[in-house]
Amino acid sequence: VSPVDFKTSHTTFTFPGLINVNAYVPDLLHQDLDSLLQATRASISAGFTTMHIISDGGIKDGPALELAQRQVSGKTYSDYALSVVATAENVQSDDIKIAAKSLCIPSTGNISVTAAHFTTWPADKPIVTDATTNELASILLLASLNNRSVHVTNVRTKEDILLIALSKGKDLKVTCDVAVYSLFFTRDKYLHAPCLPTIADQQALWENLACIDVFSTGPIPYRLAKALGHHHSPWSGFEETMPLLMSAVIDGRLTLEDIKVRLHDNPLRIFDVPEQTSTHVEVVVDRDAVFTARQNHWSPLEGRMLPGNVHRVVMHGQTAYLDGIVASSPLGRDVSGIISPKR
Amino acid sequence: VSPVDFKTSHTTFTFPGLINVNAYVPDLLHQDLDSLLQATRASISAGFTTMHIISDGGIKDGPALELAQRQVSGKTYSDYALSVVATAENVQSDDIKIAAKSLCIPSTGNISVTAAHFTTWPADKPIVTDATTNELASILLLASLNNRSVHVTNVRTKEDILLIALSKGKDLKVTCDVAVYSLFFTRDKYLHAPCLPTIADQQALWENLACIDVFSTGPIPYRLAKALGHHHSPWSGFEETMPLLMSAVIDGRLTLEDIKVRLHDNPLRIFDVPEQTSTHVEVVVDRDAVFTARQNHWSPLEGRMLPGNVHRVVMHGQTAYLDGIVASSPLGRDVSGIISPKR
Ligand SMILES: [Zn+2]
Ligand SMILES: [Zn+2]
Ligand SMILES: [Zn+2]
Ligand SMILES: [Zn+2]
Ligand SMILES: [Zn+2]
Ligand SMILES: [Zn+2]
Ligand SMILES: [Zn+2]
Ligand SMILES: [Zn+2]
Repeated sequence: VSPVDFKTSHTTFTFPGLINVNAYVPDLLHQDLDSLLQATRASISAGFTTMHIISDGGIKDGPALELAQRQVSGKTYSDYALSVVATAENVQSDDIKIAAKSLCIPSTGNISVTAAHFTTWPADKPIVTDATTNELASILLLASLNNRSVHVTNVRTKEDILLIALSKGKDLKVTCDVAVYSLFFTRDKYLHAPCLPTIADQQALWENLACIDVFSTGPIPYRLAKALGHHHSPWSGFEETMPLLMSAVIDGRLTLEDIKVRLHDNPLRIFDVPEQTSTHVEVVVDRDAVFTARQNHWSPLEGRMLPGNVHRVVMHGQTAYLDGIVASSPLGRDVSGIISPKR
Repeated sequence: VSPVDFKTSHTTFTFPGLINVNAYVPDLLHQDLDSLLQATRASISAGFTTMHIISDGGIKDGPALELAQRQVSGKTYSDYALSVVATAENVQSDDIKIAAKSLCIPSTGNISVTAAHFTTWPADKPIVTDATTNELASILLLASLNNRSVHVTNVRTKEDILLIALSKGKDLKVTCDVAVYSLFFTRDKYLHAPCLPTIADQQALWENLACIDVFSTGPIPYRLAKALGHHHSPWSGFEETMPLLMSAVIDGRLTLEDIKVRLHDNPLRIFDVPEQTSTHVEVVVDRDAVFTARQNHWSPLEGRMLPGNVHRVVMHGQTAYLDGIVASSPLGRDVSGIISPKR
């Protein structure tokens, strides 16, 4: 990352390939995983050269995982890793332990089932949860009792970030991500969107920035569009990421290093994602730019003056994206099963 | 405790003064604490020479605690200790920290408030909770993070006893009690009483007997009577304790030592209750005895053949109870504020 000089109105920063640890794809298994394929196009356009995919209607067993991997193989524009949803039935499944990147524990899970997953899930693959309040606490307890790590995704309340901060202070192996939308939008502005934090929640998130390991997109862009009655597209929330973060850099609330750490260094380490060679993202900061959604869908940023945009993405030595155009050949690979030789 | 010989039909066992760590008094503060005073009579009749009082409509601040202590002073038949309910308002109260025996965390508590109590409540006084499932897990997490002990009262589900067993196995400082009713009655027999465990829950409790530190009476006798439309009296559940436990001794499911450990040794240690000198309880086991509620209220045991009964209670060198008669002079003291010089 190069130093900032905002005296000229156009500046380019170069980041390593960004990693989105919560690329939420609603209704993942629907229609030959077309929404996943589209999400990989949206992803590369936003500078995310690797995406860790989480879904509510997600993958729950070995055959579903294998089918999904076969269906999208060779058709994706960013590297991707698939997560499996923990259920009472897949505790003993060896297939998912080998082929999936991570295990996602839903907030509605039963403690005994979750406890069983904590004892059987491989130590070198992440356990991820979107649980909040007491459900989150109970998962942190299981992580503590089993002396293993857990990643909390889409943290959005003061109570949860304080519990995570407290746990980190006591050397619990917990990491977390916060959605970029949670840092910039509140339900005070979008009254019908309980998916967004309150002003007090958002303030607590900013105050505990040091505890936030990762920024992600997560399900909030989808839920916000739905709550407001707008059409959602796989692009929603992806292309807003860099303009929002760059506005915070200009406001002095974030440094470029803060962003690089939370969109590359930490995700790479926490999710054990392979480092991509010859991969970088060029971001142009232009103080006079006006945000325009490229895919013509609703965006909370539509028409707003926002300073940053992804100009070019080079992945594995080839230009994968340039000024609104995704390269025609899909360069993405499945990195779900790849584990570093030694952690 | 003397060895068992059931060949003769009448046998007497002598226990040290028993301690009831969850003497539930509904509507505690009502009418000059009359129900508490009555409960101390019921308590001494059942062999409980010390009772730790827990209430839903409980004591929440220093003035209420002081008033309660003044109102019952010199009128109680067993020694007693008072608990204070943790609220958002009493986190910083020094009064309750000095004068109360313990802090009771309700299952409905907010995590931030509970976390604050865990950092401010004195390390040498118990924290007690009746929370279950995720609320229980979140309290165990806070105990773990703060490296302090917590006592879980009225455990009644398989899930909870397994979580406690798991936590004990990982050296968390957690102890627990199970109500005697939970060991002998199920909701399969009393269909309208969700306060009772299921058959599977009860089986898990017996299987994890080694994890159960203490037996108590708790709120179940009150709730069962209410659920079935019967009148409740302070005697409900107290005088049933010894007959039920003795029936398990005769069935070979409990030893006399199991009972002594869970009604004296462990409660004394966990709740730091002062050892009572010249105090003992004589229990007569008579195989032909039929249970008759002494106070003429409804009991689930009414008319059943049950082998054991409290014959005599000697407290502080004086006979406090003999064959249905409570001695006229109240010998009980308030032991809420007493802490052993060194733990
Ligand atoms: Zn790198
Ligand atoms: Zn659209
Ligand atoms: Zn260019
Ligand atoms: Zn009343
Ligand atoms: Zn003793
Ligand atoms: Zn005697
Ligand atoms: Zn009655
Ligand atoms: Zn006698």
